[in-house]
Amino acid sequence: MPDASITTVPVPLGDRAYEIYVGRGLLQEAGQRIAALGARAAAIVTDEHVGPLYADILARSLQQHGLRTSVVTVPAGEATKCYAFLETVCDAVLEARIERGDLVVALGGGVVGDLAGFAAAVVRRGVRFVQVPTTLLSQVDSSVGGKTGINSRHGKNLVGAFHQPSLVLADTALLDTLPLREMRAGYAEVVKYGLIDDAAFFAWCEKNWQGVFAGGPERNEAVAQSCRAKAAVVVRDEREDGDRALLNLGHTFGHALERITHYNSARLVHGEGVAIGLCLAFRFSASLGLCPVADAERVEAHLSAAGLPTRLNQVAGGCGTVEDLLDAMAQDKKVKGGALTFILASGIGKSFIAPGISVDSVRAFLKDENSA
Amino acid sequence: MPDASITTVPVPLGDRAYEIYVGRGLLQEAGQRIAALGARAAAIVTDEHVGPLYADILARSLQQHGLRTSVVTVPAGEATKCYAFLETVCDAVLEARIERGDLVVALGGGVVGDLAGFAAAVVRRGVRFVQVPTTLLSQVDSSVGGKTGINSRHGKNLVGAFHQPSLVLADTALLDTLPLREMRAGYAEVVKYGLIDDAAFFAWCEKNWQGVFAGGPERNEAVAQSCRAKAAVVVRDEREDGDRALLNLGHTFGHALERITHYNSARLVHGEGVAIGLCLAFRFSASLGLCPVADAERVEAHLSAAGLPTRLNQVAGGCGTVEDLLDAMAQDKKVKGGALTFILASGIGKSFIAPGISVDSVRAFLKDENSA
Ligand SMILES: NC(=O)c1ccc[n+]([C@@H]2O[C@H](COP(=O)([O-])OP(=O)(O)OC[C@H]3O[C@@H](n4cnc5c(N)ncnc54)[C@H](O)[C@@H]3O)[C@@H](O)[C@H]2O)c1
Ligand SMILES: NC(=O)c1ccc[n+]([C@@H]2O[C@H](COP(=O)([O-])OP(=O)(O)OC[C@H]3O[C@@H](n4cnc5c(N)ncnc54)[C@H](O)[C@@H]3O)[C@@H](O)[C@H]2O)c1
Repeated sequence: MPDASITTVPVPLGDRAYEIYVGRGLLQEAGQRIAALGARAAAIVTDEHVGPLYADILARSLQQHGLRTSVVTVPAGEATKCYAFLETVCDAVLEARIERGDLVVALGGGVVGDLAGFAAAVVRRGVRFVQVPTTLLSQVDSSVGGKTGINSRHGKNLVGAFHQPSLVLADTALLDTLPLREMRAGYAEVVKYGLIDDAAFFAWCEKNWQGVFAGGPERNEAVAQSCRAKAAVVVRDEREDGDRALLNLGHTFGHALERITHYNSARLVHGEGVAIGLCLAFRFSASLGLCPVADAERVEAHLSAAGLPTRLNQVAGGCGTVEDLLDAMAQDKKVKGGALTFILASGIGKSFIAPGISVDSVRAFLKDENSA
Repeated sequence: MPDASITTVPVPLGDRAYEIYVGRGLLQEAGQRIAALGARAAAIVTDEHVGPLYADILARSLQQHGLRTSVVTVPAGEATKCYAFLETVCDAVLEARIERGDLVVALGGGVVGDLAGFAAAVVRRGVRFVQVPTTLLSQVDSSVGGKTGINSRHGKNLVGAFHQPSLVLADTALLDTLPLREMRAGYAEVVKYGLIDDAAFFAWCEKNWQGVFAGGPERNEAVAQSCRAKAAVVVRDEREDGDRALLNLGHTFGHALERITHYNSARLVHGEGVAIGLCLAFRFSASLGLCPVADAERVEAHLSAAGLPTRLNQVAGGCGTVEDLLDAMAQDKKVKGGALTFILASGIGKSFIAPGISVDSVRAFLKDENSA
């Protein structure tokens, strides 16, 4: 049942400006908003979980508004963000005779969004694309900001392009079918925005998280507020040369955990790594005397209440030794010249970029954590 | 023997501005100019013909100027511009620990330049790159302007990026080892610049072409003048939305011939297709009453004198029926809404974009050509 209360979040990036719409029922009406972009054809890219649930609704709506439509379905899961499926998607988009004025529409989570967005960036040296994110994580994070790409055997997201979407439709009703574990994983990123620079939003989360999960108006509010937060950072630093690094709060540890668990989602999904990473970043900050211990505890209490892991020993199958973790961190692209750059915090809503953190201090901290 | 007479051609593209250096002996001194870009490492990409001749000289020069250097060698030939070798090159660049401030250096013809440039565009969402073009075609055409990419099964250059190089070093001495056939093929593109909008340069070519082939100062002059011509068009229309289409003079026919001969370089190389295409464009213009017949004859006489094919019946193994040719043209990306867009000419140095040329008029013209 379409809901009248649609929120619009502008992303004012000059000639690459676009709007994010947030609300229930956007999928059914997608054709109208997408057709307004002036394309003649749209190639929908989706995955095998999302396609059967939603691709027909989207395709029908697009066709009703005069767009020639095609659908390409890729396997679900992180392994799909690879060269082989880049080829599959690019060729499918070309097969669908998508020209410079036409569109690629990503219907799925972050995997589909990153892959389809990258394909859109390179087919005919760039066609426009629309994000229809279907996971909480993609609605609050990956669909906003224009980072697209695939994984290489040297690491995640190492091959890609900056390519802003022309429109983002975050239909929060689609999250009703999302597995709880994926919902929780996305919620870690919502909490992250509060922790970065918005203590009031974190407090709001503590009070309203159950409404976010249940699908009430709180969900729309959480998604919209997260998009606003991300858009503000992206507008300040589109190509990630500075400020945008704050978005990596929790991610240096999180990526290391993902690497150590071989990106095996049975063991750990991205958002779970982020949840543990957020707790580690706060406890590390506290251990360095930068942040009140009470704030670190409050972060842990909230993520834990929402069903997220907060400790290294919660990683299924374990996460190896401290040296394994340090190795995994050293391979991360945010390492420069031997020293580690961390995002630390002096309190909830007070994060900052801390370059040149010595490996020794991280080692000492992780030893404590690993034996805790 | 390094030659003191190096010409500089600026490409004033705002914050993507760069310089093209043209002259003999640039390879030996490459390290100095490349190191001035401020990188710490360079990944050289080359092919199996060019690598054994020149990669060591380049690597040594880079190392002498403090750059950490690696070399990845791909097979020679058009088939290398594919997804599989994009993966090979991206992974090699990552393996070489190239970071955002570092460089990819393309050492080779247009195949290596297009592939390595595309890899540079997408590794870590964009690292800088330097073109060291080693064919006449790449020195006068493909290394300038930032178009990079690979082929798809749906057509040539359909997947790629606009990514401007940071520097182009066109060492004309490297052409001394180029097979004559490749030299001729590149020369077709030199002549093209005269035909587009510079009748005086075409006349200069008629008088000086032997010096270009022999490697005298005329070669430097031809390369520099071609780069100036291409740079001027690129600066007016970086992303090929308008004017830049003039550079496709001869290419609508040329691409169709390449397609029909299955990009088999034993039958036809790109520049040969362009040579025939230029003659066809002029004769087609003449047949439409747009261009003096004498000008079309002068174009043919010059290309023929330089050893290039000028007629359809010179394509090894033939080029099929008129309908085959029309089909091949219709698949070209410059076809919009059924009508064909051609670059025609009202005389030497007087080309123009002619959209909406009816397929029937092309058919009639090709019938005459095919039976000639
Ligand atoms: N581009 C960016 O800025 C950015 C930012 C953060 C994360 N990412 C990337 O996002 C990816 C993770 O995204 P994700 O968490 O959305 O994972 P995902 O795309 O793998 O989706 C998670 C699972 O949920 C399923 N699913 C999706 N929507 C559903 C729905 N509505 N109902 C039922 N099932 C549904 C999917 O099929 C999949 O199995 C990672 O690859 C990460 O690198 C990118
Ligand atoms: N990006 C652009 O704007 C643009 C413009 C025109 C053409 N192109 C592309 O350029 C490609 C053709 O480039 P090309 O003609 O340079 O072909 P190429 O790169 O295949 O080189 C031709 C042959 O010459 C060999 N070779 C190269 N330099 C040599 C040297 N100095 N000595 C001996 N042998 C040498 C190569 O190994 C190859 O066998 C096509 O893929 C075409 O699509 C791109």
